[in-house]
Amino acid sequence: MRLFAFLLATILPVAATADERVTDFTLDNGLDVVVIEDHRAPVAVHMLWYRSGSADEPLGQSGVAHFLEHLLFKATDTLEAGEFSATVARNGGEDNAFTSYDYTAYYQRIAADRLDLIVQMEADRMRNIHLTEEDITTERQVILEERAQRTDNNPRSLFGEQMNAAQYLNHRYGVPIIGWRNEMETLDREDALSFYKSHYAPNNAILVVAGDVTPDEVRALAEKHYAPIPAEPTLPPRFRAEEPVQNAERRVIYRDPRVAQPYVNRSYLAPERDAGAQEKAAALTVLAEILGGGQTSVFSEKLQFDTQTAVYTGAFYSGTSLDRTTFDVVVVPAEGITLEAAEAAMDKVLADFLTEGVNPEQLDRIKMQLRAAEIYARDDVEAAANRYGRALTSSLTIADVQAWPEVLQAVTAADVMAAAREVLNRRQSVTGWLMSEEATQ
Amino acid sequence: MRLFAFLLATILPVAATADERVTDFTLDNGLDVVVIEDHRAPVAVHMLWYRSGSADEPLGQSGVAHFLEHLLFKATDTLEAGEFSATVARNGGEDNAFTSYDYTAYYQRIAADRLDLIVQMEADRMRNIHLTEEDITTERQVILEERAQRTDNNPRSLFGEQMNAAQYLNHRYGVPIIGWRNEMETLDREDALSFYKSHYAPNNAILVVAGDVTPDEVRALAEKHYAPIPAEPTLPPRFRAEEPVQNAERRVIYRDPRVAQPYVNRSYLAPERDAGAQEKAAALTVLAEILGGGQTSVFSEKLQFDTQTAVYTGAFYSGTSLDRTTFDVVVVPAEGITLEAAEAAMDKVLADFLTEGVNPEQLDRIKMQLRAAEIYARDDVEAAANRYGRALTSSLTIADVQAWPEVLQAVTAADVMAAAREVLNRRQSVTGWLMSEEATQ
Repeated sequence: MRLFAFLLATILPVAATADERVTDFTLDNGLDVVVIEDHRAPVAVHMLWYRSGSADEPLGQSGVAHFLEHLLFKATDTLEAGEFSATVARNGGEDNAFTSYDYTAYYQRIAADRLDLIVQMEADRMRNIHLTEEDITTERQVILEERAQRTDNNPRSLFGEQMNAAQYLNHRYGVPIIGWRNEMETLDREDALSFYKSHYAPNNAILVVAGDVTPDEVRALAEKHYAPIPAEPTLPPRFRAEEPVQNAERRVIYRDPRVAQPYVNRSYLAPERDAGAQEKAAALTVLAEILGGGQTSVFSEKLQFDTQTAVYTGAFYSGTSLDRTTFDVVVVPAEGITLEAAEAAMDKVLADFLTEGVNPEQLDRIKMQLRAAEIYARDDVEAAANRYGRALTSSLTIADVQAWPEVLQAVTAADVMAAAREVLNRRQSVTGWLMSEEATQ
Repeated sequence: MRLFAFLLATILPVAATADERVTDFTLDNGLDVVVIEDHRAPVAVHMLWYRSGSADEPLGQSGVAHFLEHLLFKATDTLEAGEFSATVARNGGEDNAFTSYDYTAYYQRIAADRLDLIVQMEADRMRNIHLTEEDITTERQVILEERAQRTDNNPRSLFGEQMNAAQYLNHRYGVPIIGWRNEMETLDREDALSFYKSHYAPNNAILVVAGDVTPDEVRALAEKHYAPIPAEPTLPPRFRAEEPVQNAERRVIYRDPRVAQPYVNRSYLAPERDAGAQEKAAALTVLAEILGGGQTSVFSEKLQFDTQTAVYTGAFYSGTSLDRTTFDVVVVPAEGITLEAAEAAMDKVLADFLTEGVNPEQLDRIKMQLRAAEIYARDDVEAAANRYGRALTSSLTIADVQAWPEVLQAVTAADVMAAAREVLNRRQSVTGWLMSEEATQ
């Protein structure tokens, strides 16, 4: 396991790139605090991030991290069920929560002068939830319904779930965040409380406060509400079963009569951003833009405009991940083009790209776009809080987040080609065909 | 979890089918004992079966069950490292051990009058092994070398490993028994001892003694050596993460320059034998014989003789498994036939079979062969011990083992077709191509 470099620091103001004023410190109980100042509007975003997500769930309890996220809106020692969100709303704010593989996060946006109330309530539910059997029954029905809506009623989601399961031979990223239905149905109060007790603790959390606040104000509030919560001494180490060598190409064919538009998706196992070593991930980020980022991309030019093989193409990579992630390419064939032909055309484009290399003008244009996106993102205090929270729960540091734009700008054509040659390896890939039903035994 | 029906019984002589004289009883500490009498030669087979195998391993410690099996030949309180096997050999016997998904078993064959010594030594190492760091280092090297020999140097094994991983989306049967190399390399003394302490206990074991012994003799020996070992009160429940719905056909293409003979393998997820409900497994056992059992099978006739598409065909099913197993078909194409053509021919045969049904004469012949094999097996006391041990660690009962031959004989053509229609479902299947290297990115 990598350690957070900033865990060792106390009140270490980091020179932010350009306008981003970021301060971080750690309470005695292990809670990491990040303050992102932005005084343009009298609003604050308060986010509490736990370094635990679906990939940290015990075997057989898939979905419990997300289930618990729902249950955190039930009663605590001092709040009734539903009172948390109602209080936020009554104060003109909004709240939400989300669960991913590597984290669970709780979010509120509120007038900056009401922050004390929010901090107090969020600290309260870190340790004091009360769960009745009725809460469990009701909310389990809610998450099952959520799965029905988002996954079971959506062929693309079901397809993606099966592709992920085929991509990961050993790692828990192969298990859906929402959970396998058969396991969700068995989740009980004990499962939820066990995950809560072992993962919800100040020494497993990162508080990110962004907006019209000062580090001193946030420190005072954190000391007041979070500091009294003792560190959890039995916090389990963050253990993940690693992938073995992947050496056989896999394919997934998912047929569903609800599919109106068939497509080909290939995912390649790919390295993630690592603390102090983000260069390869930066090259893959640029590679995704070159291959599939919009109308001037290689896929778009060759498959949509030149040959009209496809009506849509794309390439996707998100390196913010604790463990190995995927690099994905997608081709949606034009009318009358089979998936087989679309895949062959895609592979031809990839093979040609590996021999022809990067167009320098395209690379410059993409870097300029990335720079522009970066500057644009600075106007969004919520996006900034999100960016830091995701990075810090994926083992990156504040310094990594701040270096990222420059690491992206430093990517060369040679870096892109080296990353492409490493990652576009069929032996570590899954090729998926999503298609409508056909006669087959 | 299903319970062993016979756990509740004490000295319950079961009316064995035909010649098999089987007695079973349970010691106060939970050790189940099965005695199979066969007085034709003055030899005894002593097997201790633990209801724990590789599928019971903790996440990230694949291979630890098999690693521990090796370590059980090291020192104990009273024996030096290697002394166990040396003592067996010095007394004219032989010993061995094996690990599977659902069990770990220790085996000795010895003159019946030396049984006391064996029982004493096996009971000793149930709780008293001593492991030095040097044992760990040495034996870890041995298992890594074993993996190199059996798996990494064998494209068919590597292929099978990747197919299994694609077959199981959630269940630990997708992880190889020998372990993923990256995890084997990290196995340490603590991992081995933790598995030992939590799984090696009388209430997690079945003693099978077969040969020239009487139930009273075996009971006396068991009371003398095993009864003093206390039951382990913290024995974990036998928990397995279950498979979610499988609804997308998968494919695995493994290329390796060492492959001299490419072939197609398809595995379908299939039900296992369950206590008191063995009918479907019996139908699948017959189906495997019909499709791929030798020269008069459907595959052989249509693919090897009629069309000469294949040089070898087969179908395989083994229902003795705690959780869902696989039904496998294999076609090795003839010279000049591509894997694509071989697979298409195989699918044509399967589709035709599903419409044409079972040839009654073939069914009769297969049942006669199964009956003959059954009678022949009775002459092999070792095979009988093995049969009971495997069944009992897979949640079957002695009554199930004894009913099995008759359940097989009762299979009808309609049963076979119903089982075939259920199991030959591409959505729950993995199709694998093993091939030699080809140019591809």
